[in-house]
Amino acid sequence: MKKFTDNQNCTLVRVPGTSANCGPGFDCLGVATTIYNYLDLTLLRTGRVEVESSGIGSENIPRGRRNLTWQAIRRLLKEVGREEEFKGAIIRTKSNVPISRGLGSSSTAIVAGLTAANKILGSPLDKNDLLRLATELEGHPDNVAPAIFGGFTVSVMDKGAVQTFSFLPRIKLKLIVAVPEFELSTRLARKVLPKNVALKDAIFNVSRASMLVAALVEGREELLPLAFDDALHQPYRKKLVPGMTEVFDAAKSAGALGAAISGAGSCLIAFTSARSGLEQKIASSMVAAFQAHNIKSEALILGVDKRGATVIDS
Amino acid sequence: MKKFTDNQNCTLVRVPGTSANCGPGFDCLGVATTIYNYLDLTLLRTGRVEVESSGIGSENIPRGRRNLTWQAIRRLLKEVGREEEFKGAIIRTKSNVPISRGLGSSSTAIVAGLTAANKILGSPLDKNDLLRLATELEGHPDNVAPAIFGGFTVSVMDKGAVQTFSFLPRIKLKLIVAVPEFELSTRLARKVLPKNVALKDAIFNVSRASMLVAALVEGREELLPLAFDDALHQPYRKKLVPGMTEVFDAAKSAGALGAAISGAGSCLIAFTSARSGLEQKIASSMVAAFQAHNIKSEALILGVDKRGATVIDS
Repeated sequence: MKKFTDNQNCTLVRVPGTSANCGPGFDCLGVATTIYNYLDLTLLRTGRVEVESSGIGSENIPRGRRNLTWQAIRRLLKEVGREEEFKGAIIRTKSNVPISRGLGSSSTAIVAGLTAANKILGSPLDKNDLLRLATELEGHPDNVAPAIFGGFTVSVMDKGAVQTFSFLPRIKLKLIVAVPEFELSTRLARKVLPKNVALKDAIFNVSRASMLVAALVEGREELLPLAFDDALHQPYRKKLVPGMTEVFDAAKSAGALGAAISGAGSCLIAFTSARSGLEQKIASSMVAAFQAHNIKSEALILGVDKRGATVIDS
Repeated sequence: MKKFTDNQNCTLVRVPGTSANCGPGFDCLGVATTIYNYLDLTLLRTGRVEVESSGIGSENIPRGRRNLTWQAIRRLLKEVGREEEFKGAIIRTKSNVPISRGLGSSSTAIVAGLTAANKILGSPLDKNDLLRLATELEGHPDNVAPAIFGGFTVSVMDKGAVQTFSFLPRIKLKLIVAVPEFELSTRLARKVLPKNVALKDAIFNVSRASMLVAALVEGREELLPLAFDDALHQPYRKKLVPGMTEVFDAAKSAGALGAAISGAGSCLIAFTSARSGLEQKIASSMVAAFQAHNIKSEALILGVDKRGATVIDS
């Protein structure tokens, strides 16, 4: 991606697509992946907001002041008291992350805007500040946290404030994402969840999320197959993703350590160790299992992004 | 403790008292502490079961074949097919772990019997085998897992089978246990729990348990204060432990990183870093807060046991 402008008020950033929940870690666990969206940002002293987008879903990205990246930039300018200085921007994006599929595309737009604007302004905010603003804009930290920090993240919300622990697992993982042709809105995926759940299902997830985090941190591969299961959200969302159970089973039969809905879907994600060499086999079996339900899908084979949002050039 | 017998069919083991749940890790997290029960076991070829006990609660320990340690020994003898060879035992115990207070005293009896008998028989079973038998006898792994492995443990039950991850935190902790004068039966503490809970309370615990495990494994003290809170069991058990909330608040005001009911109670446990030097202050404030509710209590200042059940002499 070539930068169009070349002055001190512009920068180029890269932000990873992310997968929230990872099975049992509902609304708290997330992982950054090696698929990226790019933002080439120029802050303007005039009130003009220009949006140029290319890549996946670019035709649907709002132009002008409704643009999500611009809203994030505005929020940051306000936070640091410089909204009178920069009233507009040229926003050029290149997107690789599928839209409305549970890979955190809206989070990349927010995090990219915050990261790029912060850089241009001389980095007045640190990553925890950016996380706070991004969580406020997105409504929850599940995707913005890994998009900012990279690796896996555990986030806790406490009275509106967010705290995040980020870590790189001591086991090299491949993430296999089956991207079905249909979109799924997060709102709908939330709506199917019950207000109350069985205490035993809560315990099911508490134990597995704890085990998942522990096993990833310490690189204990043998403990992972038990740790990716969920009883709090996937059973209810199954009906929104036809073939979900069969795709999970296919992935595991092909050797995956576990499988889960990516965020609120529609993508399904499977995990395997990089040294297993099984990622292609797992990918094919997931696509075939979707196909058996008449759903076309494409498989992405990704790694864990280690850096999070990164300034490439400024 | 002096061994009475001195032949090849006897051994002396030490088993730590344990604290389950640690706040959010309901029914899965546990920690071994530096308070110990001892068992001096002699296996007999005759059918005589002799129980001699000293120390805390020794007057109430069942003699003869109803003795819990003997039942564990019997289970192990059966498991390894040697129940016809050894039909009795001399069981001598010395107990320091308070009874029916949520410090895993019954687990020590089970784990001690299994560990000692296994040692006498030439260690045919490994720790995971002992965990399986102990979980079967106790009904859940929360206390037996840390009693066997030491350190902190995360346990997952899956179709009756149990898997445990044990770890030593990368931060040196002191555990302050306020032991109130009243006992609390686990059965009663279970009975007050609802069958269903709010999904948001489940998420509350999933995120905090994950954070707690991550922060302990990686020694991130600054993340701990948020991580010990619970919404799944303590709010319901509050009425069984008068002053619970006030004792928690007192411990935290005195500098504790967090506080929780120990297992199903009645003990309350607070956590602080060893280098804080605050353990005495925390202990006094917890005892005082109990006293304000007319409950006499005694404070134990313990560390994290690193070894779990240990053969001292054989």
